[in-house]
Amino acid sequence: MQEPNVYDVIVVGAGCAGLSAGMYAGRFGLKTIVVGEMPGGTITTTHIVENYPPIKSITGLELGNMFLEHAKAYDVPVEMDIVTGIEKKENGFLVKTDYKEFFGKTVIYATGTEWKKHGGAGEKEFANKGVHYCALCDGAFYKGKKIAIIGSGDSAVKESALLAELGSHVYMIVRGDGIKGERINRENALSNPKIEILTNVEVKEFLGNSKLERVRLSRAIKVKGAQEESDELEVSAVFVLIGHIPRTQIAGKLGVELDKRGEIVIDRVGRTNVAGFFGAGDCCDTEFKQAIISASEGVSAAYSADQYLKKRGK
Amino acid sequence: MQEPNVYDVIVVGAGCAGLSAGMYAGRFGLKTIVVGEMPGGTITTTHIVENYPPIKSITGLELGNMFLEHAKAYDVPVEMDIVTGIEKKENGFLVKTDYKEFFGKTVIYATGTEWKKHGGAGEKEFANKGVHYCALCDGAFYKGKKIAIIGSGDSAVKESALLAELGSHVYMIVRGDGIKGERINRENALSNPKIEILTNVEVKEFLGNSKLERVRLSRAIKVKGAQEESDELEVSAVFVLIGHIPRTQIAGKLGVELDKRGEIVIDRVGRTNVAGFFGAGDCCDTEFKQAIISASEGVSAAYSADQYLKKRGK
Repeated sequence: MQEPNVYDVIVVGAGCAGLSAGMYAGRFGLKTIVVGEMPGGTITTTHIVENYPPIKSITGLELGNMFLEHAKAYDVPVEMDIVTGIEKKENGFLVKTDYKEFFGKTVIYATGTEWKKHGGAGEKEFANKGVHYCALCDGAFYKGKKIAIIGSGDSAVKESALLAELGSHVYMIVRGDGIKGERINRENALSNPKIEILTNVEVKEFLGNSKLERVRLSRAIKVKGAQEESDELEVSAVFVLIGHIPRTQIAGKLGVELDKRGEIVIDRVGRTNVAGFFGAGDCCDTEFKQAIISASEGVSAAYSADQYLKKRGK
Repeated sequence: MQEPNVYDVIVVGAGCAGLSAGMYAGRFGLKTIVVGEMPGGTITTTHIVENYPPIKSITGLELGNMFLEHAKAYDVPVEMDIVTGIEKKENGFLVKTDYKEFFGKTVIYATGTEWKKHGGAGEKEFANKGVHYCALCDGAFYKGKKIAIIGSGDSAVKESALLAELGSHVYMIVRGDGIKGERINRENALSNPKIEILTNVEVKEFLGNSKLERVRLSRAIKVKGAQEESDELEVSAVFVLIGHIPRTQIAGKLGVELDKRGEIVIDRVGRTNVAGFFGAGDCCDTEFKQAIISASEGVSAAYSADQYLKKRGK
């Protein structure tokens, strides 16, 4: 008899990658559990998703929920919990959370990424009091207000559309010469009269009293409608959208190979350098990070876990 | 001015991989065309798809259609045509069809597979007159009739369910000791009273007059309800479901590296040994062939084509 908390597959992370892995592992008849902090994962913080083939348009929340329901359709439990550590044992892995321990013959690690912090003075002080990292999560607090975005990459550019819908005006504070990202998103931002792009400028400090009121810039600048140049910009909120860092600390401690960005090195079927430990999704070293690719990597990792268990006689 | 038939990307193949590639290339703002014989691709011949995350259950036809609509949403034309040859030119590729020629700065090759033939005597003679390769396409012609399946792999096992719904009885003619494939599909077949699995036996000849009437087996066998053993089995149809071969002849002629199974060798982002020529989906050397993986590979190939065009200055 198997112990109740012994699993063929423990999936760490409940986003597109983790839930797809869980669903397939369930289909393969493997005893599977998904443990994650945020059922549905990062995609649920995206407003509208229009690039998950073959779904023309869907909210991120709905899409995340579909992944969750799909895994559950194969009776795979999805446990909301924080994994605090993983230890290599003789025949598998001990996965520890705040309150529980699970034993997995294999682990599929699909923890995704977290938002990169800006690092400017006052950022911590005003976190959630005007400094935010997710437009969809917190944008609605600033209806009719002036909002700034720090960042020029694809997600910054994409989320500017949503923030412009909510706020009275959106400043994109860009270190370089202009915004980047997918052409279609860029064109939308450039043609939006509510979005003003400030280039070759950086935020030096977040200022205010109990809440964020303004930021200090690296140089004086004259924004639309202003009488004169100023190195302070009045805004009710700043969204720091400068990218993500992989959540791979626990895997790294276990001896899983990470690349110089801290991403898990996987092969084409999700195998890592540690036998029985597989990776999938945005925490891995895949160049092009997209939800559809994460889902596919989850499926590949489940396949590889199944092959691995078959080979060693389960 | 560009010639009207000059494209940034020509996608060859209009299945999950090709249409996802086309959709993303369109999003990237690349001038793109998809040329394929069968809009929606092989998935449209699948009855019910329950393993394309995060869609719990959908007909193959509907799923194929969604891919088609998604590509069209980005104004990517999908041309129904047969590609007969591809020639390497100085700055790209000349793609020839029966009636037209297109010039592509890059090609994404996503032609999928075709059904493997059985090779037994009479197979050609009775093709489409009782010998078939796609249960969903042709199963409905045999309502209430006795049907045989040749094959024991996952697709044979999966399609047995559909054929059992239609026919009065289904024989699975299996060369080895039993059926294979995904556990969930296997269990369904084994528990279906209309499905009879005949092991360690092969079809030697397809027999009949104007239509298939029976097959000659490699040994005498006593089927359910029969009085005695016989090496002939009366059936109205035989579905040959023994796998697929990649459709890579045209790519091979161009000098694209194929592996020993004839599959295109790609890297993690769909690059082949020929610069500007990318591969995606079931015609490539990916181990685990699934629709979700094909879609993801199409997206990766579009990304790589975009990167390639950017690098060479389009």
